[in-house]
Amino acid sequence: MSYDRLTADNAALLLIDHQTGLSNGIQDQSVPEYMTAVAALVKLGKTFSLPTIATTSAGDGPNGPLLPIISNTLPDAPVIHRPGEINAWDNSEFVEAVRKTGRKKLIVAGVSTEVCVAFVALSAIRAGYEVYAVIDASGTWNKLVQEVAVTRMAQAGVVPMTWVAVGAELQGDWRNPHGQELGAVMGEHLPFYGNLIGSFRATKAGAQ
Amino acid sequence: MSYDRLTADNAALLLIDHQTGLSNGIQDQSVPEYMTAVAALVKLGKTFSLPTIATTSAGDGPNGPLLPIISNTLPDAPVIHRPGEINAWDNSEFVEAVRKTGRKKLIVAGVSTEVCVAFVALSAIRAGYEVYAVIDASGTWNKLVQEVAVTRMAQAGVVPMTWVAVGAELQGDWRNPHGQELGAVMGEHLPFYGNLIGSFRATKAGAQ
Amino acid sequence: MSYDRLTADNAALLLIDHQTGLSNGIQDQSVPEYMTAVAALVKLGKTFSLPTIATTSAGDGPNGPLLPIISNTLPDAPVIHRPGEINAWDNSEFVEAVRKTGRKKLIVAGVSTEVCVAFVALSAIRAGYEVYAVIDASGTWNKLVQEVAVTRMAQAGVVPMTWVAVGAELQGDWRNPHGQELGAVMGEHLPFYGNLIGSFRATKAGAQ
Amino acid sequence: MSYDRLTADNAALLLIDHQTGLSNGIQDQSVPEYMTAVAALVKLGKTFSLPTIATTSAGDGPNGPLLPIISNTLPDAPVIHRPGEINAWDNSEFVEAVRKTGRKKLIVAGVSTEVCVAFVALSAIRAGYEVYAVIDASGTWNKLVQEVAVTRMAQAGVVPMTWVAVGAELQGDWRNPHGQELGAVMGEHLPFYGNLIGSFRATKAGAQ
Amino acid sequence: MSYDRLTADNAALLLIDHQTGLSNGIQDQSVPEYMTAVAALVKLGKTFSLPTIATTSAGDGPNGPLLPIISNTLPDAPVIHRPGEINAWDNSEFVEAVRKTGRKKLIVAGVSTEVCVAFVALSAIRAGYEVYAVIDASGTWNKLVQEVAVTRMAQAGVVPMTWVAVGAELQGDWRNPHGQELGAVMGEHLPFYGNLIGSFRATKAGAQ
Amino acid sequence: MSYDRLTADNAALLLIDHQTGLSNGIQDQSVPEYMTAVAALVKLGKTFSLPTIATTSAGDGPNGPLLPIISNTLPDAPVIHRPGEINAWDNSEFVEAVRKTGRKKLIVAGVSTEVCVAFVALSAIRAGYEVYAVIDASGTWNKLVQEVAVTRMAQAGVVPMTWVAVGAELQGDWRNPHGQELGAVMGEHLPFYGNLIGSFRATKAGAQ
Amino acid sequence: MSYDRLTADNAALLLIDHQTGLSNGIQDQSVPEYMTAVAALVKLGKTFSLPTIATTSAGDGPNGPLLPIISNTLPDAPVIHRPGEINAWDNSEFVEAVRKTGRKKLIVAGVSTEVCVAFVALSAIRAGYEVYAVIDASGTWNKLVQEVAVTRMAQAGVVPMTWVAVGAELQGDWRNPHGQELGAVMGEHLPFYGNLIGSFRATKAGAQ
Amino acid sequence: MSYDRLTADNAALLLIDHQTGLSNGIQDQSVPEYMTAVAALVKLGKTFSLPTIATTSAGDGPNGPLLPIISNTLPDAPVIHRPGEINAWDNSEFVEAVRKTGRKKLIVAGVSTEVCVAFVALSAIRAGYEVYAVIDASGTWNKLVQEVAVTRMAQAGVVPMTWVAVGAELQGDWRNPHGQELGAVMGEHLPFYGNLIGSFRATKAGAQ
Repeated sequence: MSYDRLTADNAALLLIDHQTGLSNGIQDQSVPEYMTAVAALVKLGKTFSLPTIATTSAGDGPNGPLLPIISNTLPDAPVIHRPGEINAWDNSEFVEAVRKTGRKKLIVAGVSTEVCVAFVALSAIRAGYEVYAVIDASGTWNKLVQEVAVTRMAQAGVVPMTWVAVGAELQGDWRNPHGQELGAVMGEHLPFYGNLIGSFRATKAGAQ
Repeated sequence: MSYDRLTADNAALLLIDHQTGLSNGIQDQSVPEYMTAVAALVKLGKTFSLPTIATTSAGDGPNGPLLPIISNTLPDAPVIHRPGEINAWDNSEFVEAVRKTGRKKLIVAGVSTEVCVAFVALSAIRAGYEVYAVIDASGTWNKLVQEVAVTRMAQAGVVPMTWVAVGAELQGDWRNPHGQELGAVMGEHLPFYGNLIGSFRATKAGAQ
Repeated sequence: MSYDRLTADNAALLLIDHQTGLSNGIQDQSVPEYMTAVAALVKLGKTFSLPTIATTSAGDGPNGPLLPIISNTLPDAPVIHRPGEINAWDNSEFVEAVRKTGRKKLIVAGVSTEVCVAFVALSAIRAGYEVYAVIDASGTWNKLVQEVAVTRMAQAGVVPMTWVAVGAELQGDWRNPHGQELGAVMGEHLPFYGNLIGSFRATKAGAQ
Repeated sequence: MSYDRLTADNAALLLIDHQTGLSNGIQDQSVPEYMTAVAALVKLGKTFSLPTIATTSAGDGPNGPLLPIISNTLPDAPVIHRPGEINAWDNSEFVEAVRKTGRKKLIVAGVSTEVCVAFVALSAIRAGYEVYAVIDASGTWNKLVQEVAVTRMAQAGVVPMTWVAVGAELQGDWRNPHGQELGAVMGEHLPFYGNLIGSFRATKAGAQ
Repeated sequence: MSYDRLTADNAALLLIDHQTGLSNGIQDQSVPEYMTAVAALVKLGKTFSLPTIATTSAGDGPNGPLLPIISNTLPDAPVIHRPGEINAWDNSEFVEAVRKTGRKKLIVAGVSTEVCVAFVALSAIRAGYEVYAVIDASGTWNKLVQEVAVTRMAQAGVVPMTWVAVGAELQGDWRNPHGQELGAVMGEHLPFYGNLIGSFRATKAGAQ
Repeated sequence: MSYDRLTADNAALLLIDHQTGLSNGIQDQSVPEYMTAVAALVKLGKTFSLPTIATTSAGDGPNGPLLPIISNTLPDAPVIHRPGEINAWDNSEFVEAVRKTGRKKLIVAGVSTEVCVAFVALSAIRAGYEVYAVIDASGTWNKLVQEVAVTRMAQAGVVPMTWVAVGAELQGDWRNPHGQELGAVMGEHLPFYGNLIGSFRATKAGAQ
Repeated sequence: MSYDRLTADNAALLLIDHQTGLSNGIQDQSVPEYMTAVAALVKLGKTFSLPTIATTSAGDGPNGPLLPIISNTLPDAPVIHRPGEINAWDNSEFVEAVRKTGRKKLIVAGVSTEVCVAFVALSAIRAGYEVYAVIDASGTWNKLVQEVAVTRMAQAGVVPMTWVAVGAELQGDWRNPHGQELGAVMGEHLPFYGNLIGSFRATKAGAQ
Repeated sequence: MSYDRLTADNAALLLIDHQTGLSNGIQDQSVPEYMTAVAALVKLGKTFSLPTIATTSAGDGPNGPLLPIISNTLPDAPVIHRPGEINAWDNSEFVEAVRKTGRKKLIVAGVSTEVCVAFVALSAIRAGYEVYAVIDASGTWNKLVQEVAVTRMAQAGVVPMTWVAVGAELQGDWRNPHGQELGAVMGEHLPFYGNLIGSFRATKAGAQ
């Protein structure tokens, strides 16, 4: 009675090249918007215990190390340092790690949208996975590149999403486990919602 | 000789989480543009006596009560207060209410576009309905989220629309019943049109 | 101990050429944003019983009649139909009406910003008045024209404002008379504020 | 060896509700950009002797008369004044006029994009025609409505185009008949091109 | 009783480097908006018989010849071809031509705003003239350059304007001579106004 | 040898109506950009031990409580709950608190820019203070209102600033006390800078 | 195990009407962004030794000569001067040159996007090729025309791309031949990346 | 007979913190636009032999080394590495270097606009210099910060400029020395102008 949706049991999270250096090239969103979306997506990975695989491209070179929010929040997630492959799907260790999750739905985000995200997404589609590209937790050089990348991915059957939708789809029902944690993630990273809760609680308290 | 269009007899209207608190998170349009579009769509529901179902998510919490324009304009429309389901289609009372309308074409709007609207839309498509998502009578956190949500829905076969098109398709011919009421809705909520009518009438009167 | 501010006792309101035809040429804001700002400013005039003078340019020609929100809300305000003067300050009846108000602070809005508003504003400054130009309750052909008009007026000593600031400055203290009426105007025309109040009241009621 | 393209022999031009009143509601482009695109498309109709059908909706009411550029440039094109049908395809006289052209490719433009253009386009597709919607020679209330309308039409198989592409596809080769007339249309309505030609000719003349 | 305004008797019009080549570098407005504003300003010069001086920079080089709208509309205006001076005020023939007009108010427009317009404007201010820079009938490389140029000029006492304001200030009263000609210029180059007149006349005619 | 700049010894910080409810009306920046700027400014207050005064308007009503970042970061800053005065300068307790700081330079931010910030700024200027308005740590209903508010304040001698400039001016020299703390604030709230530091440290470490 | 991607062995590069005159009509991107993207794409052609075919339309007329970056970087690429065909695919010499490359994947860019690029792309698709349209190394008259052109092409199966993605897909792995040359192209034409490398090398050197 | 303008004899060029790391934080312009403007300004310094002083802030730290375009183009310009002063005017070596130039007009650009540029500009104004801030050869975190910085500087008497205006004012007359070099700088960094020249020369050559 519903479409085949993302759940904590059927999805894995792939974080592609969210590195400090590359992140400074992002101009399709403001940097605060990008950073808060990445942080939120990473926390969704933790909240729902999604099998998560991070990867970096030349992480000891100019692209820089993984964003600390990833290593700090998901210290146990494997980080595959690719020695040269631009498309992470060309790295057999990465593909094997994905396979081992046993999940068929892949939530993908990264930098840059049209290269690191799109290449993995297209390869994964071809390999038989369903792919969800999280556009606001990804970033690229300007708005035009973003638009073209979304069009290319959608054309190939990749489902474009944004992080709030990912969280809401994984949660399903606020009464399910993790409702409170999801609320906390949203309260912090979708700040209007945190404000809403702040106002509500104050009114409640004041009304007694 | 024509495409299979929306009529007052084949369509139902679903209003998802148009709540005061959630509405203050909208940044993909200006708030006045969003509010006027919601009001217009609600009045179309009344004008064409569309079976209408409203629903709220945690309406007694921070999300806030239903926008008054809905309760005031459509006092008899059932309002299903969901205790926790994010996707209204997971609420059996809601699905049953939709089923009882006997309509196969569903006009859907709400907050937020990529969660409350998209989830219902995708579920309804899967359940065999035809779905029309009214993007300007819906709202979300920023323009990027809106763009991604429209792409996801269109990819799945949801038809994106805006409220003037809904009104015009339902009316079909200005000589049909409700032409005058539709004109009044447009005159108020598409204000250039109200100005046009004001100028016209003044000229007519002055010309006699 | 404070700057010399607008009050209900020292200010008059001048509404210049807010006509249905001219209003359809506005492209520096969306039409719903312009219309809601004009309506709000007019209601401020009523709330604070500001001496108000409206004027039209060729009101029986293509420029169209006064916006109904003005005639309906302020039925007693004089409306001076100028037979040809582009700058209302060239019409002696208008200047005399302004003089008779006895006010030295003039709140001016109209269409178009760079002609009807700016000309009156500049003339009034020269005639010894202090002038406040309400930019969001005015409108013009595109954003560039608006920017240039604001620069020209500010250069000449006109104070640029927007309607919420006018209302707040006139009110001064929410405990002064008219606090409730001002709240109602803001609730309707600054719709986020109406939503805020709706949420607050519902929480209050629910919390009891 | 090529896609099945528009030619002067296989296409007809449908101009839907390009009326003076409706044109003043357009905010998805600047008015000068819209007006110059409409004028250019109309001149393409003349240049390539395309069978052309214009239609108006309540042309003696607030929507206003046909834009003079149409009646002046194509005085022999039939203008079907619809007494009430919003979708021109519901008017049998209009459909019959289209049928009589014997053309299977329909170039459609009008106001507004999501109503008058989209409805005709969708109906014509269903009736077996190929439809090309000229988005810049059409107009609507804001950019969001335009985006949604283009998505809806593209989803249904309508080909979105803009006037320069229509002219270039009809011309095919600058050495074909009408190259000079097309150059003149482009020189006037794509003004950078007119400037380019002006510079070129002056240099040529000066170089002798 | 009014500010010291532009009139047909106290103002001269200076058109600086409106050349076909330079005009193709304009990106602070769309090209159709720039071209229509230039055409309108030139016609105002003719309508009000303003002493007009045009000048070109290297008009036989890549900058291109004068826009034809200038030479066609004002065939008798002197055109001073500067052999190298970037600031037209450095050309004694130009300065002498300005002096001979006997006017103390100079309406200046040109390409590019921050060079050709600003330099003349600043020099003329220093030479004791009052200067009005018509920003929409001028153009430059991008929006930032325009903003900076307007700030620089306003800081130095140049009055920024746009063409409709120039026309309205020169006309003063629609009943003065040239009202009809000004209406025609506005009807063509402020196309919403032309549409307004078209609707009005049609309604008038139809109402008889 | 330098302009008279902000220092930790001559400046006080005034935080006007940064409340959860009001913050949800902000549309001149994205909410994440506004929230991060407010947090940064508050942390600058702490870093440089600026005398800080917060104030709320109807903090137990719909405007909501103070943003938690303020109460958590500066728990000892007095918070003056105004019972009705819109302009905090009308509240004698607030003015007295400002006076007691003994500082003549006031750094002001708040919601909304054109009301709560501008009114205090204008009053303080009149009372003989120098005022710096921090525009990115303030917010208002839309971009136009922001632009108009900045123009009004600048016209009256208020210095417009943004939070990074405030921090840099207070610090003066990175070798002064607090350099490390300022670096941490910038690293978190100007996220490109945090990324820069992350890359630098990793390279340094890797290079050893 | 991957999608069928572009390689140096399966792709050819088609550069359509990148001429100096036409390039000055581009307004969908800033001119510096367009120029740098074209230069980068041309250098990719050289780096990967892609069979490259350039073509011009009336290259001795107002459209101007080929951009020097093309002739200087790829002096051996054939340049087919079309005497009149708007769609290069109508020129048998061009089609034959494409055929001779033996490649089935065509990377296409040019001016303008909706004419010269789209027509070739659609014809090549129909002729059995796979087509990749490089949108940022192409240009057109305004953003709307670009959006419509991308939609039309994507609808027909053309894959929209941007130059960085082309380079990354061709390279595949940084350890493959040409990694250093690609890095140099990116360092120059994606300038954030050049800055990144500059910082990295300096830190490395300084850390020793 | 003219305003007191920039010349090669009265102006010095100050380049403040144009470093690779800081440059990657710029979001008020696209990176290609910023980089090309910086390169152009540096080349103007060389063309007109302006005394030039560059300075860096923590150039061996995360801010990165000087942009290579500066060191390569102006190898003899002193580069003052500030050990900690944020405002370069606090560094006595820098101030002394400026003094030694003997110039009273300072052309200033850098990163970021509101800190490194504005602080130097304000200090230099106070020290009796005339200051010209080149906004497009400077950069900062977002458009709002840029706007606020320009307003602050203009309020204090700093003249805002852009690089083309600087070059044109220095040149004065194309027949003066350096005309050809300036043309080359413009041809490369104002690429529309390069295209213009390319077209012109080709036509000239072809016309012979």
